[in-house]
Amino acid sequence: MKNLGYYNGIIDEIEKMTIPMCDRVCFFGDGIYDATYSRNYNIFALNDHVDRFFNSAKLLKINIPHTKSQLKALLIDMVEKMDTGENFVYFQATRGLSPVRNHLFPQTEKANIWINIFHKKIEDVYRKVNLITVEDTRFFHCNIKTLNLIPSVMASQKAKEMNCDEAIFHRNGRVTECSHSNVHIIKDGKFITPPTDNLILAGVARKRLILACNRLNIPVLEKPFTVKTLLSADEVIISSAGQLCLSASTVDKTAVGNKAPQILSALQKEVLNEFIKETDMLK
Amino acid sequence: MKNLGYYNGIIDEIEKMTIPMCDRVCFFGDGIYDATYSRNYNIFALNDHVDRFFNSAKLLKINIPHTKSQLKALLIDMVEKMDTGENFVYFQATRGLSPVRNHLFPQTEKANIWINIFHKKIEDVYRKVNLITVEDTRFFHCNIKTLNLIPSVMASQKAKEMNCDEAIFHRNGRVTECSHSNVHIIKDGKFITPPTDNLILAGVARKRLILACNRLNIPVLEKPFTVKTLLSADEVIISSAGQLCLSASTVDKTAVGNKAPQILSALQKEVLNEFIKETDMLK
Repeated sequence: MKNLGYYNGIIDEIEKMTIPMCDRVCFFGDGIYDATYSRNYNIFALNDHVDRFFNSAKLLKINIPHTKSQLKALLIDMVEKMDTGENFVYFQATRGLSPVRNHLFPQTEKANIWINIFHKKIEDVYRKVNLITVEDTRFFHCNIKTLNLIPSVMASQKAKEMNCDEAIFHRNGRVTECSHSNVHIIKDGKFITPPTDNLILAGVARKRLILACNRLNIPVLEKPFTVKTLLSADEVIISSAGQLCLSASTVDKTAVGNKAPQILSALQKEVLNEFIKETDMLK
Repeated sequence: MKNLGYYNGIIDEIEKMTIPMCDRVCFFGDGIYDATYSRNYNIFALNDHVDRFFNSAKLLKINIPHTKSQLKALLIDMVEKMDTGENFVYFQATRGLSPVRNHLFPQTEKANIWINIFHKKIEDVYRKVNLITVEDTRFFHCNIKTLNLIPSVMASQKAKEMNCDEAIFHRNGRVTECSHSNVHIIKDGKFITPPTDNLILAGVARKRLILACNRLNIPVLEKPFTVKTLLSADEVIISSAGQLCLSASTVDKTAVGNKAPQILSALQKEVLNEFIKETDMLK
């Protein structure tokens, strides 16, 4: 089972791939990314992810040298080179090369395009997760999917060292998102999720959850909530490209949720069915 | 004139150097760095920079595979390979390899060591600079010299596009530092500089300026100040490894400083003489 890498048209197994030392990712983490999953060689929510990728690039003035259609074709082509159809589909763009380290944008502003395809399935939506809370010390550009991810790395590692799955960030008590997921609650029959400002990423899985709520007549509130509210919620849910709708059994070792199992289960079935339906056609 | 690169023992001209695609710098900007200058093949303030490098690594739990002495020897060795003795000496450590992208620390936690040596002189300390102010939207780990530098890249580029040299960050009016320098003011005969908390980097040039003030009997205050205070200061000074003590003539197109030229000039001479003295011995 090989994982593949792509860099500006060069393709090989990821372990054999190298990139120029003067790519600006090396000095500044100067780039953006996006990621989704494939099943049966079909890439899930490809349009949403490519749209968000171009939006991240635009916000940082990174010029993608492809059209959206060209990028989609590249991603589909890379997935088709894999041994199996179930993969983690990761792609990024970095702000060119700086042979002399310099914060200023390089003269030739054409971005470098990276793709990585890893054999990996989405997670079992019915698995219960254990979470910790961590002060959100990140920058104020969390709406952009950048490669400046050290605080998320540190929070994620902290969760693991506490034998937990994910870390919930909060700013002075206000819940924002997790280290690599969005977070939501169910309370009194409503689905409540933090609004998409500069403190959180507008998750594609989050969007799909909201649409699923609409179809299931579950009221949706996009409004900030605190850690205290989360701890007393009927259900605590995290979502990401690979974790469509996982509910928490504990937060900071304290039991949470498990008070609206029917709504939760309806939501999980709905988003899982959607994923299956969109990726079911055998290529 | 060649600029050299080093990666885990491999050395070549930087344009020819490549690094593994699965180095964690590529996915997360997961690393730290430090930088200084050499003259006559002598590296200025080497101990200070290597100490700070190890401190940055420790704060992010990155394990440097060398002792401080070994790293210093590596840096000296790299500088000695250059055509001239005047160079920008840059080094970084990244948190190993992740052949499958994963926020969690890799199993083998040995950092990758990078060095880049660029032909470059420190700037003329008497050059006047023009500055802009920018809201500081960075994370709350600015005391660590990380490779998560996108906000600094954006601010630096914005300054250039306004025909200016540097951008001063402020958080709700409180001055922190610049996109790649510290910032200080002279007011009523005192040297005032923001304190070294998590909002600013403890600059080596900043430390040398404070020590120079001590020798010159200029009182030093380490306390926060606002943009308003800065605009009415007697002098506005920026400092970094390559800009030992540059004063501003404008901030946001408004004339600033120029009201304590004697103190400024005494300080500039003092830090420049120190730099020259420490790097004067011909190797």
